Amino acid sequence: MILDRIDSENDIKKIDPGEYDELAAEIRSFLVDHVSETGGHLASNLGAVELTMALHLCMDFPKDKLIWDVGHQAYTHKLLTGRKEGFDTLRKEGGMSGFPKMSESDADAFDTGHSSTSISAALGYAEARKLKGGSEKIVAVIGDGAFSNGMAFEALNNMSHLKENIIVILNDNEMSISHNVGAMSKYLNKIRLGSAYNGLKIGVEDALMTIPIAGEKIAKKLKQTKDSMKQFVVPGKFFEDLGISYIGPVNGHDVTEMVETFSKAFKLKHPILIHVKTKKGMGYSYAEKHPDYFHGIEPFDKKTGKVLSKPEVMSYSGIFARKLTEMAAGNKSIVAVTAAMPDGTGLSRFGKAYPSRLFDVGIAEEHAVTFAAGMAAAGLTPVVAIYSSFLQRAYDQILHDVCLMGLHVIFGIDRAGFVGSDGETHQGLYDISYLNGMPGMTIMAPKNRYEMSRMLEFAVDFDGPIAIRYPKDFAYYELKNKIQYIELGKSEVLERGERLLILAVGSMVKEAVQVVERLKEEGYAPTLINVRFVKPFDITLYRELISEHDILCTMEEGMLNGGFGQTVSGTLLEEGYSFRWIPFAVKDIYVKQATRARQMEENCLSPDTMSKVLIKALKGNDNI
Amino acid sequence: MILDRIDSENDIKKIDPGEYDELAAEIRSFLVDHVSETGGHLASNLGAVELTMALHLCMDFPKDKLIWDVGHQAYTHKLLTGRKEGFDTLRKEGGMSGFPKMSESDADAFDTGHSSTSISAALGYAEARKLKGGSEKIVAVIGDGAFSNGMAFEALNNMSHLKENIIVILNDNEMSISHNVGAMSKYLNKIRLGSAYNGLKIGVEDALMTIPIAGEKIAKKLKQTKDSMKQFVVPGKFFEDLGISYIGPVNGHDVTEMVETFSKAFKLKHPILIHVKTKKGMGYSYAEKHPDYFHGIEPFDKKTGKVLSKPEVMSYSGIFARKLTEMAAGNKSIVAVTAAMPDGTGLSRFGKAYPSRLFDVGIAEEHAVTFAAGMAAAGLTPVVAIYSSFLQRAYDQILHDVCLMGLHVIFGIDRAGFVGSDGETHQGLYDISYLNGMPGMTIMAPKNRYEMSRMLEFAVDFDGPIAIRYPKDFAYYELKNKIQYIELGKSEVLERGERLLILAVGSMVKEAVQVVERLKEEGYAPTLINVRFVKPFDITLYRELISEHDILCTMEEGMLNGGFGQTVSGTLLEEGYSFRWIPFAVKDIYVKQATRARQMEENCLSPDTMSKVLIKALKGNDNI
Repeated sequence: MILDRIDSENDIKKIDPGEYDELAAEIRSFLVDHVSETGGHLASNLGAVELTMALHLCMDFPKDKLIWDVGHQAYTHKLLTGRKEGFDTLRKEGGMSGFPKMSESDADAFDTGHSSTSISAALGYAEARKLKGGSEKIVAVIGDGAFSNGMAFEALNNMSHLKENIIVILNDNEMSISHNVGAMSKYLNKIRLGSAYNGLKIGVEDALMTIPIAGEKIAKKLKQTKDSMKQFVVPGKFFEDLGISYIGPVNGHDVTEMVETFSKAFKLKHPILIHVKTKKGMGYSYAEKHPDYFHGIEPFDKKTGKVLSKPEVMSYSGIFARKLTEMAAGNKSIVAVTAAMPDGTGLSRFGKAYPSRLFDVGIAEEHAVTFAAGMAAAGLTPVVAIYSSFLQRAYDQILHDVCLMGLHVIFGIDRAGFVGSDGETHQGLYDISYLNGMPGMTIMAPKNRYEMSRMLEFAVDFDGPIAIRYPKDFAYYELKNKIQYIELGKSEVLERGERLLILAVGSMVKEAVQVVERLKEEGYAPTLINVRFVKPFDITLYRELISEHDILCTMEEGMLNGGFGQTVSGTLLEEGYSFRWIPFAVKDIYVKQATRARQMEENCLSPDTMSKVLIKALKGNDNI
Repeated sequence: MILDRIDSENDIKKIDPGEYDELAAEIRSFLVDHVSETGGHLASNLGAVELTMALHLCMDFPKDKLIWDVGHQAYTHKLLTGRKEGFDTLRKEGGMSGFPKMSESDADAFDTGHSSTSISAALGYAEARKLKGGSEKIVAVIGDGAFSNGMAFEALNNMSHLKENIIVILNDNEMSISHNVGAMSKYLNKIRLGSAYNGLKIGVEDALMTIPIAGEKIAKKLKQTKDSMKQFVVPGKFFEDLGISYIGPVNGHDVTEMVETFSKAFKLKHPILIHVKTKKGMGYSYAEKHPDYFHGIEPFDKKTGKVLSKPEVMSYSGIFARKLTEMAAGNKSIVAVTAAMPDGTGLSRFGKAYPSRLFDVGIAEEHAVTFAAGMAAAGLTPVVAIYSSFLQRAYDQILHDVCLMGLHVIFGIDRAGFVGSDGETHQGLYDISYLNGMPGMTIMAPKNRYEMSRMLEFAVDFDGPIAIRYPKDFAYYELKNKIQYIELGKSEVLERGERLLILAVGSMVKEAVQVVERLKEEGYAPTLINVRFVKPFDITLYRELISEHDILCTMEEGMLNGGFGQTVSGTLLEEGYSFRWIPFAVKDIYVKQATRARQMEENCLSPDTMSKVLIKALKGNDNI
C-alpha cells in the first residue's frame, strides 16, 4: 500500500508521480471502507481526492494555510496529515471530527462547518501575512454551492484590494448538497462547456491574421482597448471584473495538471481564482449516480450502496413536509422556501406536487427569509424550512424584515436541538434564545407527530411571524389521544399532580413522560405540562399552577441562557411568586459530536438524570 | 408652487413636463428647508429627486410596488405621496418616520432600514404576482453601497429564474455612507466611464465593414458565437452573466431620459437592472461637497451648512477610537475592521494614523467578522467596530467563526441601546440577548469614558472573543475617581447599603447614580453595583450580596428577554436564593423613534420612573 507510507503531513511529496493514480485509488477505497462503517460525508470527499493530493504536493504544512469551506470534504486532507486512525472514530463521541479542527491538527488552519466562510478567513490570513511579513501560502477551497452565498461574494468583493498572492480554488462539481440553483451556477456551467469562447478566440485571431492590413488594424484596435480581448475571449470575465485573476477550468481529477497550474499560480502576486472541475462521488459508482444520497450518509453496505438500517418511523421533517403538501392542495396561498435543503427538510415532496410553489434559493438563508417576507407582504403564505443552525445566518432578516412588520411568515425550524455526529458547528440549540428576544414572534414546539401537523395548521391560519421547532429525530407517536385544540399561547395539561410542576418544551415531553413514570414509582405525583407555545407562553396557567406547587421544573432542548425556562421563571419571579426552579437545558457550553441520545445524557436531559435530580429535590423538600 | 398641486400619489402625472425642472428645484428647497430644521438624511435624498419623480411618472400607487433599499432616500417619495405635512415631525416622537413604513402609506410596499433587503423583497412580490396573476409593476431601488452586500448578490443570483418583469434600479452615486469600497464599486465606475466599450463597438463594426469578404466572415463568426458581441461591447456584462438584462448608465438627473428608459424597460418580460448615475447632495452646494457629512445630519443652518449645536463632550465612539489609536502605536498586532462606518464608529481617526491597519469592508458585516476571525487565527488582534443593530447580520459568524474557536476578536459594539430618531429598525437593544447565548463570549459595558478606555485595554490584553457595548451618547465623565483595576468577570461596588441591591449595566450606571440619590433622600441606602461584565458575571459577589438584601434590581439598556437581569436572577433563583426581582429593561416591544431620553422614559428606564418603582417596592416591604 502506498498509503502506508504516508504517516504525516508532507509525506505525500516522497511518493513517485507514477504512483499518484494508485494512491488516489487507495484513498478512495479507504474512504468507502470507512465511511460505509461509520457513516459520514462521502460523495464530496470522493470528488476531492486528486484536488487534495495536488494541494498537498504544492504546499507545506503546517506553515501554509489551507481552509476548507464547509469542511465536510476534508477527509483526504485528514488522511494525508496523519489522521488515518481517526477514521475508526469518525464523527463519534470523543473521536475525529467530520470537519476541520485546529485542535486536531496544526494542518487545519480554520474550523469550518457552515458554508461560505473560507474566503473571508483566508483573506484575514493574507492581511495578517502582509502585516507580519510572512511568506506562507494561503488557499481557500470552496464548492460551487457555497460560492453562491452572499458571504462568499462579500469576500470576493474585498479580495481585489490585496496586491499579494491568495488562491481561491472553486471546486465545481455542479451541485451543492442537492442540485445547485441560481445564475452563478448557470454561469459556471457555461464556462465548463467553454469551448465556444476558446473557439472564438482562435477563430477570430486566425481570421484576423489572414487579412494583412485591415486585419492587423482590427487586431490592434482590439488590443488597444483596455480589457477588450479579455471581454470576449477569457472565460471567467465575471471574476476578472471583481479584480480576481481567473484560471480554468482545470481537470480536478488530473493531479499533474493541477500541480502544474497551482505551482504557477502561487508565483503570481495577486488574488487568483482557480476553477477546478470535479465529479462528486468519483470512483464509487453508487455515489457517482446518486451524489445527493451519498452526501451525508449513515453506515451502508459498500457492495450494494444501501444504507444498513432503514428507519420505520417517519421523521419530524417527513411529517412536516407531508402535512404541508396536503394543506397546499386546498390553500393556494401556501408556498415553500428552502435554502439548498429540499431533501433534508422533506420539501422535495412538496416540490414534486407543486413545482411552481417551491423556492429553493440555494445556500442563501438571508435572501430566503426576506424573499419570504416579500411574498408575505404580497399576500402569500410562505413557509420557510431551514435547519436551526443555518437559520442563524438570517437572524437580522427574521427580526428586521419579518417580525418588525409583523408579516405572516412561517418558519419550519428543522434540526432544532441536538444534531448528533455533525457536532458543535451544527447544533440547533440557539433558536429559542434568539427568537425569544424578537418582539412579535410566536414560537411553537410539538410534543409528537400529531401535534406537529396541528401546529402547522395553526401556523397557516395564524397571522404574523410564527415558528415551529422540531428535532432531528423520528416523530414521537405516543400520547396520540392527548391531542386537544391548539390555542394561541395555551399549554396543554398532561398530568395534574402536586408539589412539582414540570413544563416540557416540544421534544422534551417524550422524556418528561418517562420522568413522571419514575417519579410515580417513587410515590410522587408531579404535574406535567406540554408547553406548546414557548412564546407567548401560558402565563395564566403557570400563575395558577405555581401557587399550588413548590418546585418549577423546565425542560428544553436548547440553551439555558435566554431560553424558555429563564424567561418563564423570570416572569414568575418578577411577579412575586416564590418557588424553587430546576432548569434542564444546555448550560453555557458547546456540545460536541456524539449520538443524540448521548448528547441528551451528557447535558443532563435524559429521563434518568432528570428523574434523579428531581427525586432528590422532592426528598430534600420532604425533610423541610 | 408646483409642489402645492401634489397632494397625493399619482398627482405628479398632472404636472406639465416643462415644469419638471422647477418641481425638482422646489422639492430640493423643501428638503433643505425641512431637514435643516429637523435633522435627517439629506445628501442621498437630494440625489434621488429626479429618479423618484421619474419612477412616480411611470408607476401607479398603491397598485405598483416600489421598494427603497435602506429607505433613508425616500423623502421625495414621501413628498409625492401626500406626506408633505409629515416633514414637520420627521423622525420625531409620534411623527413621520425617516424610512418607508407600510403603516404610514399604502404607497410604501416594504419597511426598510437595514441595507440590501430590497431585491429579495421585490423578488418575493414578483413571485406572488406570478402565482396570483397580477399585473402590478415591481421596482427595487438600491444604492451602489448596498449593492456590494452579500444579500443583494444572493437575490440577484436568484432573480434570473423569473421570466417576468422586475426592475432593479441601481442608484449609483459612487458612495455608500462614506466612500465605497470593493471590486463591485470599481467595476461600476468602469461602466460609468464606459465610452471605451461603446467606442470599441463602433470602431470594430466600422472596421469590419470596410473589408468586403474577410470582414463579413469575421463579423459573421462573431455573431454566430452566442453571447460574443455582448461579451465585448455591452457594459454590464457582469449582470448579464447573472441572467439580468443591463441598461445604462442613465443620467439620474434627467427626468425625461429616465421616463423613456423606464417605460421601455417595463415592457420587457424578464429581470432588468437599470444603472442610474446620480450625484449625492445634488443641488445644495454644501451637501455636494461633503456628502458624508450631510448623509445623516442634525439640524443645521442652511445658509452656512453648519450644524447648529456642536457637542462639547466626546461620544463613546470618540473615546473608543482615540484610545484604540493610542494603543495601536505600541501594539503592532492591533488592526481595526468596520463595515462602511469609519466615521460613525470613529475609526477614521485610526485609519489616518494607521492606513494599512484599518479595513473598511463596505456594507458586509458577515465578511467583516469572519475576516477578523481569520486575522485573529493568524495572530493579529482585530477590533471590529460595528453598530449593534447592524452586527445582527453577523450573528452566525460571531457564534460559528469566532466563539466556537475561541478566537481573540474584540467587538466594539457601537450604538448599543436606544438610538433615538432612527427608530425601531436601528435600535441596538438585542446584542446582550444574542451574545449571552453564545458560550465563550465575554461582554463588557463601561459606566463612563474612563472605564471605556480601561475596558479596551483589558480587551486587547485578553485572549478570546470579547465585546464592549456602548451607547449612542456622549461619554459620561462622572465617577472618575471610582475607576479600579478591571478584572475578568468582576463587578465594581459603588455603594454598599442594605435591602436593595442594584446591578446597573454600562450606560445605566449614570442613571442608577441618580436613583440612589433620590432613594437616599427618602431615607433608603441601596447597594449600587457597576456590573462591568455582563458575561461572565460576578456570581461570587452577587451570591454574597443577595443574602444580605431583599430586593434585586437590574438595569440594562436592552431587551428583558435573554438579557443580563434574566440570566442573573435565573442563576440566583436556581441556586436557591430567595429574593424579589425588579428588572428595568425593554419589555417585549419595538421601540419607536423619539429622542434617546424619551425612549428611556417610555421604557421605564429614566431615574424618575425607576426611583418611583423602587421606593414603592421598599415601602411595600416596610409594611411586611
